[in-house]
Amino acid sequence: MGRIICCGLGPGDPDLMSVRADRIVRAAKHVAYFRKKGQLGQARRIVEGLLVADVSEYPMEYPVTTEIAFDSPDYAQLLGSFYDEWAERLARLARAIDVIVLCEGDPYFYGSFMHLHSRLQGRVEIEVIAGIPGMAGCWNSVGQPIALADDVTTVLMGTLPEAELELRMRSSDALVVMKTGRNLKKIRRALASAGRLDDAWLVERGTMPDQRVARLAELGETDCPYFAIVLVHGQGRRKEAAQ
Amino acid sequence: MGRIICCGLGPGDPDLMSVRADRIVRAAKHVAYFRKKGQLGQARRIVEGLLVADVSEYPMEYPVTTEIAFDSPDYAQLLGSFYDEWAERLARLARAIDVIVLCEGDPYFYGSFMHLHSRLQGRVEIEVIAGIPGMAGCWNSVGQPIALADDVTTVLMGTLPEAELELRMRSSDALVVMKTGRNLKKIRRALASAGRLDDAWLVERGTMPDQRVARLAELGETDCPYFAIVLVHGQGRRKEAAQ
Repeated sequence: MGRIICCGLGPGDPDLMSVRADRIVRAAKHVAYFRKKGQLGQARRIVEGLLVADVSEYPMEYPVTTEIAFDSPDYAQLLGSFYDEWAERLARLARAIDVIVLCEGDPYFYGSFMHLHSRLQGRVEIEVIAGIPGMAGCWNSVGQPIALADDVTTVLMGTLPEAELELRMRSSDALVVMKTGRNLKKIRRALASAGRLDDAWLVERGTMPDQRVARLAELGETDCPYFAIVLVHGQGRRKEAAQ
Repeated sequence: MGRIICCGLGPGDPDLMSVRADRIVRAAKHVAYFRKKGQLGQARRIVEGLLVADVSEYPMEYPVTTEIAFDSPDYAQLLGSFYDEWAERLARLARAIDVIVLCEGDPYFYGSFMHLHSRLQGRVEIEVIAGIPGMAGCWNSVGQPIALADDVTTVLMGTLPEAELELRMRSSDALVVMKTGRNLKKIRRALASAGRLDDAWLVERGTMPDQRVARLAELGETDCPYFAIVLVHGQGRRKEAAQ
């Protein structure tokens, strides 16, 4: 019996992979990873140059369609079938061999592997190796503490409704906003309404060679960053005297 | 001119240190780390067995006093002087040598090194190496995704007032509570009031050989865990239809 080992690869710099992940990736005979059709894929990019020459690769390509909108129930169903099929295929492979599933960041923190994890749990032995979350790579790139002392840190998805984003941006000390992409205009408006826009940073491809760190307010409205996270640093809230 | 390199060591298992941190620790000639008097210190414990034989060690021992309460302004002042002195001492050392400051978790995420960072910035070259945050090690130990889809994740300090804890516990999907220790009873009450106690886990010494993972509700009232984090998992909030 083989196993499925989901390997968290960290934020992008291969030097920030864990010692265990590095060892497992270098010894891997079979690697699977998600990617968009026509792209190398972020997880696969991180391990470029580390894999053995005769590794078997299983790129799990997200289904594309021109007929169905990405946020429709039909697309959700299509995606569900895609995860079903890959879970089936990986379970079959793992009867005989170890399959290493490559995942950027930390798998248990908003990771795509969890769609397979829920389908595979109990059927096959799974090991998940923690990684440095993408957001930690991003705040490292800015070079300031994201949170200190009694700060409250809130992690938000840019897909949330604007009113909820604004409310939560107003009430948290430190902020991390993921899933930016085409939600960036909405995120920017919510930050402005919450009075936090001037303190917001945008980090694109954090810890990677082509990373970009910029103040969000100074970015052009039409600028469309890729693989980016928005950060607002906490100021180190002190314990309230009347506690 | 030497440098100060603050090395994030991750949650506890040395195998979860980054490749870069591992390389730097193994080559280190001078290491500094915080600890309580009479203890080895968590950061120092992680690198046990990795250091060269003739390494110079600089344990930075927190001041102790029987006269002053830990939450008084006097103790804050004492602590300030302690950080001042060590910043001075490290800056002097770094004129000639590289000093590696060992830090558990991720230094920029509620890390104690930031008290030195703010005092040293601009005076000496500082490099900070990201690590897997302690909380990520803890949710890895539970073996379930902490957050998925559109979940909001909130990181709270157990030192916050009970009413604020309860409010934020009620309104967030995924929860992480750090600085538990003697705040655990308050945290437990706040979780119960927010209707989240039955879903809460306590992870003590996550990823370490003597780790403990337990449902918080099943823990005895008098149980006083050490180095523990409380987690409540998100359920994977889906996009609201009317967005």
